[in-house]
Amino acid sequence: MSDAAPSGRRGRNARRERRQAGPAGQAVPYISRNIPNFEILSDEGAEKIEANTDRILAEIGLEFREDPEVLEIWKKAGAKVDGERVRFEKGMLQELVKTAPAQFTQHARNPARNVEIGGNNLVLAPVYGPPFVTDLDQGRRYGTIEDFRNFVKLAYMSPWLHHSGGTVCEPVDLPVNKRHFDMVYSHIKYSDKPFMGSVTAPERAEDSVKMAQITFGEEFVDQNCVMIQLINANSPLVFDATMLGALKVYARHNQACIVSPFILAGAMSPVTVAGTLSQVLAEALAGCALTQLIRPGAPVVFGAFVSSISMQSGAPTFGSPEGSLLLNGAAKLARRLNLPFRSGGSFTASKVPDAQSAQESAQTILATVQSGVNFCLHAAGWLEGGLCSSYEKFVMDADQLGMMHVLAKGIDISEESLAMDALQEVGPGGHFLGAAHTQRNFESAFFRSSIADNNSYEQWLADGELDAARRANTRWKEQLRAYTGPELDPGIDEALQAFMTERKASFPDSNV
Amino acid sequence: MSDAAPSGRRGRNARRERRQAGPAGQAVPYISRNIPNFEILSDEGAEKIEANTDRILAEIGLEFREDPEVLEIWKKAGAKVDGERVRFEKGMLQELVKTAPAQFTQHARNPARNVEIGGNNLVLAPVYGPPFVTDLDQGRRYGTIEDFRNFVKLAYMSPWLHHSGGTVCEPVDLPVNKRHFDMVYSHIKYSDKPFMGSVTAPERAEDSVKMAQITFGEEFVDQNCVMIQLINANSPLVFDATMLGALKVYARHNQACIVSPFILAGAMSPVTVAGTLSQVLAEALAGCALTQLIRPGAPVVFGAFVSSISMQSGAPTFGSPEGSLLLNGAAKLARRLNLPFRSGGSFTASKVPDAQSAQESAQTILATVQSGVNFCLHAAGWLEGGLCSSYEKFVMDADQLGMMHVLAKGIDISEESLAMDALQEVGPGGHFLGAAHTQRNFESAFFRSSIADNNSYEQWLADGELDAARRANTRWKEQLRAYTGPELDPGIDEALQAFMTERKASFPDSNV
Repeated sequence: MSDAAPSGRRGRNARRERRQAGPAGQAVPYISRNIPNFEILSDEGAEKIEANTDRILAEIGLEFREDPEVLEIWKKAGAKVDGERVRFEKGMLQELVKTAPAQFTQHARNPARNVEIGGNNLVLAPVYGPPFVTDLDQGRRYGTIEDFRNFVKLAYMSPWLHHSGGTVCEPVDLPVNKRHFDMVYSHIKYSDKPFMGSVTAPERAEDSVKMAQITFGEEFVDQNCVMIQLINANSPLVFDATMLGALKVYARHNQACIVSPFILAGAMSPVTVAGTLSQVLAEALAGCALTQLIRPGAPVVFGAFVSSISMQSGAPTFGSPEGSLLLNGAAKLARRLNLPFRSGGSFTASKVPDAQSAQESAQTILATVQSGVNFCLHAAGWLEGGLCSSYEKFVMDADQLGMMHVLAKGIDISEESLAMDALQEVGPGGHFLGAAHTQRNFESAFFRSSIADNNSYEQWLADGELDAARRANTRWKEQLRAYTGPELDPGIDEALQAFMTERKASFPDSNV
Repeated sequence: MSDAAPSGRRGRNARRERRQAGPAGQAVPYISRNIPNFEILSDEGAEKIEANTDRILAEIGLEFREDPEVLEIWKKAGAKVDGERVRFEKGMLQELVKTAPAQFTQHARNPARNVEIGGNNLVLAPVYGPPFVTDLDQGRRYGTIEDFRNFVKLAYMSPWLHHSGGTVCEPVDLPVNKRHFDMVYSHIKYSDKPFMGSVTAPERAEDSVKMAQITFGEEFVDQNCVMIQLINANSPLVFDATMLGALKVYARHNQACIVSPFILAGAMSPVTVAGTLSQVLAEALAGCALTQLIRPGAPVVFGAFVSSISMQSGAPTFGSPEGSLLLNGAAKLARRLNLPFRSGGSFTASKVPDAQSAQESAQTILATVQSGVNFCLHAAGWLEGGLCSSYEKFVMDADQLGMMHVLAKGIDISEESLAMDALQEVGPGGHFLGAAHTQRNFESAFFRSSIADNNSYEQWLADGELDAARRANTRWKEQLRAYTGPELDPGIDEALQAFMTERKASFPDSNV
């Protein structure tokens, strides 16, 4: 009986699962925002911050550590290099980033899932980096490659995530120096959405590029962006050798770098919004300019991962109002440089998918959609300050991202939407449920949450008094059960596996 | 020992409670927004909706039921009256509302708590109307006058609520036809923030005005707004005798009416945003214009309580993206009439203060702050589609309102905020915690949540693994224990009590 159950299910539940299974009909490959940018930072404010940044770049400078090649590149470009400290004349970096594209396509192996990064577009990608995973059944533990594959599958199944992301969790059961093979392979095998490559060492970046070449073809990869990578600055005002190494590999191969200051304001930047924005701009400008010196025209994204710390305990805080202001201001600074912008996510410091987690995540996701972010990492699954990928939170966040698709469409003012026929048909004191206009439009009328319970208290009691986290627990398991993967060309699959096997055998396991 | 405990507490806990007790030092009497309005609805869109509304008013009209006096007023003003149906020529109502003030002061009995309603200002008031209350200890039950007083006290204690509100819960233990005395008295006695009067019958409105006159003086009440009232339209396109009766009493006494379409789109209005906005504008315009016919210059607020229904079950939904679009569009329509605007709140359909409740509330509160709302009812405590006032949610929402105060300040671009001295002092790779600039600014630097837990996972485990709702449970009880009420002139108190006693004795109890 139990073996037959999946195909034997009938009626409402089966229909519900079909409707929810896989990228739905409403799905779009990315959001094209039809709403204006909400600009909290004024033009005058932006100019003051830019002038502040010019002083930082010229007077303080940045350090590029343990990478003589990068120092040589800067020297040749005319920067003032003093040991590892590099200073820049006013306007130099702004001039250099002009060769970067304002918008570019990241290709997916399924062309229907290509994303446009830049302009009015917003691409939503899952959480990146947590060593831990958690769910309501098993609790919190280290992530494994099985968890990794599960999150890739959940992102594939969601119509509201446009991207497969990168390190959706750390597969801690695999050796550090080899897990990148399995991560990149999982993105290619279990999804056909665009993905991210490894940045933890230059050779792992090269391996990622090689696997992309096997999948897309060498020539195609050289001429097109098929991977996007997270290059964090080591704030304040430092780029380290690991990040520089990865940046160089990807820029040379014409693959996109997201140059992201990673800042907890008050510790890694000044305790004020304007001071922090000045530093963000300096760091992002320097990293973006470097990619253009390596390969002019290579795609690059101005990134900003910026939150604050608790001034009592020093603990990182997320979803704070200052975080929203920082995000909003940085978006404007990126726009003024004509660069795509990355920020945002379902940030929270909460340890569980509770009200704190939802409130903090909602703050940041709304700021993300409204401020003009182009690429949003961490859009689903983030918990505990980024230390933990949560299965429940993943599907709760994805549901909220669905709402953002509606919000980003803005207000339709077509004749059909103005609904004069419905108003005339119903009249004072009437009821619109049966109106012809309602019948014509109800299917697409309102967003349908897969998590929210809108029933009466009595019905909710009868349904078991579940809170949102418990409903999400049911939801992600349904999604994984319903998962059927996209086709992958067997020749490509075989070639990827052969490459991985050979490379893995060529050097010993290591956990650094 | 236990009797002595409150005064005997020492050290960290006692300091914490002092800092949190009562309206804090950061408190402001209302928010003066220093951020632009986020306008999703374009000017062209607004014009189309206004033209649609003109047709609704002229072709369909509204019904004003069981109130011959109001029909007579409309007839005299030149409207086309046909039975209870009233139609309006293009521009007539827009002309009438020109006598309404764009901004007005609602006086509190403590002048330091007066609020400005209109312009760039936002006044936050608690939940209104729920028959049920709930907390984690006792669960859900009917509200009592004790609960009512508790919510008045919690609103008084919060630095982030500017207003005492109205029916913070229904005191179901008191007779329907007399509970308004105790509600109005509780607002006056246990708070000194501004409040709302009764609207459930014209004589209860008169009683409310009388109690305001005892408190503020007759002449003062006639010349100043000391109460604001919620007048709901019976959508679609109907005003009933109860609401019209209350509207007339308050407008004649120069007290503010919030004329609010109460709409669940799809049932009580078209299933589209633009159609619903057209109806909202027609209903609000008619009600606002009526107040000006009764007393030109009387303060009035364009209200919009608009959400949607689930098209599967018919259940109301809250915190939806369509709700945010409706709120945003209605705010612009009100601005174009130069009328103060009421909307927003901590809306949710959830039955518990869980992730759903927080996510939905955050959606609406952010839309409220960003769209230019002037008066926000239901800003704290709302649960279960407005059927239930939650103690935990009340303090969680209030905490979020604190964050909104920070967001509404926008981005400071002063020299001190630009922080060049900190950047120069710290330099690449340094740490800002010890910088002089950080020391100068850390006290006011970042919003301090009273609910969020930002600690490490290990610390959170050691603290008992509490979710946000459990921390809120501790918080509201601390707040009630720490409550000390504002002074009330004993003569006024005595006069209020004498009035109530005499009036209560003059007619029998009734539950209608």
